[in-house]
Amino acid sequence: MSPFCWPTRVYWEDTDGGGVVYYANYLKYLERARTEWLRDRGFSQQLLARDPGIIFTVMSVRIDYRRPARLDDQLLVTCEPRREGAASLSFMQRVYRPGAAASASLDPSALAGEDLLAAADVRVACVNARTFRPQRMPESLMGALAQEPA
Amino acid sequence: MSPFCWPTRVYWEDTDGGGVVYYANYLKYLERARTEWLRDRGFSQQLLARDPGIIFTVMSVRIDYRRPARLDDQLLVTCEPRREGAASLSFMQRVYRPGAAASASLDPSALAGEDLLAAADVRVACVNARTFRPQRMPESLMGALAQEPA
Amino acid sequence: MSPFCWPTRVYWEDTDGGGVVYYANYLKYLERARTEWLRDRGFSQQLLARDPGIIFTVMSVRIDYRRPARLDDQLLVTCEPRREGAASLSFMQRVYRPGAAASASLDPSALAGEDLLAAADVRVACVNARTFRPQRMPESLMGALAQEPA
Amino acid sequence: MSPFCWPTRVYWEDTDGGGVVYYANYLKYLERARTEWLRDRGFSQQLLARDPGIIFTVMSVRIDYRRPARLDDQLLVTCEPRREGAASLSFMQRVYRPGAAASASLDPSALAGEDLLAAADVRVACVNARTFRPQRMPESLMGALAQEPA
Repeated sequence: MSPFCWPTRVYWEDTDGGGVVYYANYLKYLERARTEWLRDRGFSQQLLARDPGIIFTVMSVRIDYRRPARLDDQLLVTCEPRREGAASLSFMQRVYRPGAAASASLDPSALAGEDLLAAADVRVACVNARTFRPQRMPESLMGALAQEPA
Repeated sequence: MSPFCWPTRVYWEDTDGGGVVYYANYLKYLERARTEWLRDRGFSQQLLARDPGIIFTVMSVRIDYRRPARLDDQLLVTCEPRREGAASLSFMQRVYRPGAAASASLDPSALAGEDLLAAADVRVACVNARTFRPQRMPESLMGALAQEPA
Repeated sequence: MSPFCWPTRVYWEDTDGGGVVYYANYLKYLERARTEWLRDRGFSQQLLARDPGIIFTVMSVRIDYRRPARLDDQLLVTCEPRREGAASLSFMQRVYRPGAAASASLDPSALAGEDLLAAADVRVACVNARTFRPQRMPESLMGALAQEPA
Repeated sequence: MSPFCWPTRVYWEDTDGGGVVYYANYLKYLERARTEWLRDRGFSQQLLARDPGIIFTVMSVRIDYRRPARLDDQLLVTCEPRREGAASLSFMQRVYRPGAAASASLDPSALAGEDLLAAADVRVACVNARTFRPQRMPESLMGALAQEPA
């Protein structure tokens, strides 16, 4: 089964004077894919922040940069979440620059190794939106995580 | 009398694939100088957000880009505030790339026309931090504005 | 006839501590829509930079901020270009937050006044990619501009 | 001996709707400190890009986020470089929010554990500025690295 996958595009704002995407901006792409995974499973971060009053905060990032992305590149960002405890999650994420065929299908299983631009592991804590103290994830989110491919 | 002036440096994060500072990032430089003008006059935006519960929100920007800034450039950003009413301010702001001498003195009156990279007028509203409705500026801030050079 | 229109989404990266989109980030949205207008008309900025060796650089921005955009908002950004000379363009651009119906149709003519978040005029120069000196736009681009709605 | 240390300030541009610094923006702080370490040792990245034609590109980042930084925070970013080979470097970097005393002295050895906001290891490759292929670092930079505290 294919992991969740979100397309994004490289604009001028993302590039730096070296002519490639600035290294910090890949973390924006990763966050967009995590947000869209949540949205796809029916969770609004705005609503979660109000009830039960939680937000997600990143605890750690491990990212390897393999090849540079460039202006106008169409990218695919994958998001494979795993529950780590009652109040934390980890995400295995990849950034690909697929060829035209794979890009059209949005199917990451059609991607070859040479398309891989960056590989990341991101650990996220569920915290109280005011105090930033760890807080148990809602059961509905636990349930969604339990149905992810292992 | 010289206007308030704040130094800043161009890093990789600010540049784009054209090899120059990305146009939106000048607005960050302008905001840093406005924040530092407030701080210099004794105002903390964090404290103002708590008591009397106000924040400043930008209503409009008019910016002309004259010459591109590049990686490693040391810039000077000026900030000349003017009260516009009980709940709004305008700032005339300039971004200079001074030669070494003027840079050392941080004195914008020593700057020549060829150093001017961008010229902006920024209108800012004082609003309630929760409702975003216009709210009268505190008297202390009114007083500080009254002492600015006309 | 409806203007060119490009959808974009507000992510965490776009917001600031005030809980709304940071004012500089609207300029990123505007640039995405100008880039997509060019792409839609068949122009790749990467190819133009190689042959005939031109890039577009922003000369001025006039932007009015009407209402704040927030996390998760789905926005529509319009782009109405007009030729200003042989080496410059101006774009009238608007940022809307449409209701669900208008959002689905991507039709800006279905948008009401209350959806307008920001209105901007952006002037852009066509310059030599190395020297940043003004350079005549290619005829093909002139032709595309001539067919825009007045 | 104290590591190289660079001060930076949190502005609105750095924060997100959660009221804290957005996680990707710490990577900007880290890069500023690496750039300033190079500058302090007499190396200009602009000149290196021209002669011998090299730039530095990030290969990997490992970052742990301990405590959130907030608007107006004055931060200290450390930078401890180590040569890894003829064409790569690694940097141990820390982001601190010192109390007023330590902040004034810019001395990271005066910092306590509770001031540590983020800890990162960043691996950087020296590459040809055009081809992005690994390229041997200049001898002068090798020499500077050899004099860093182990």
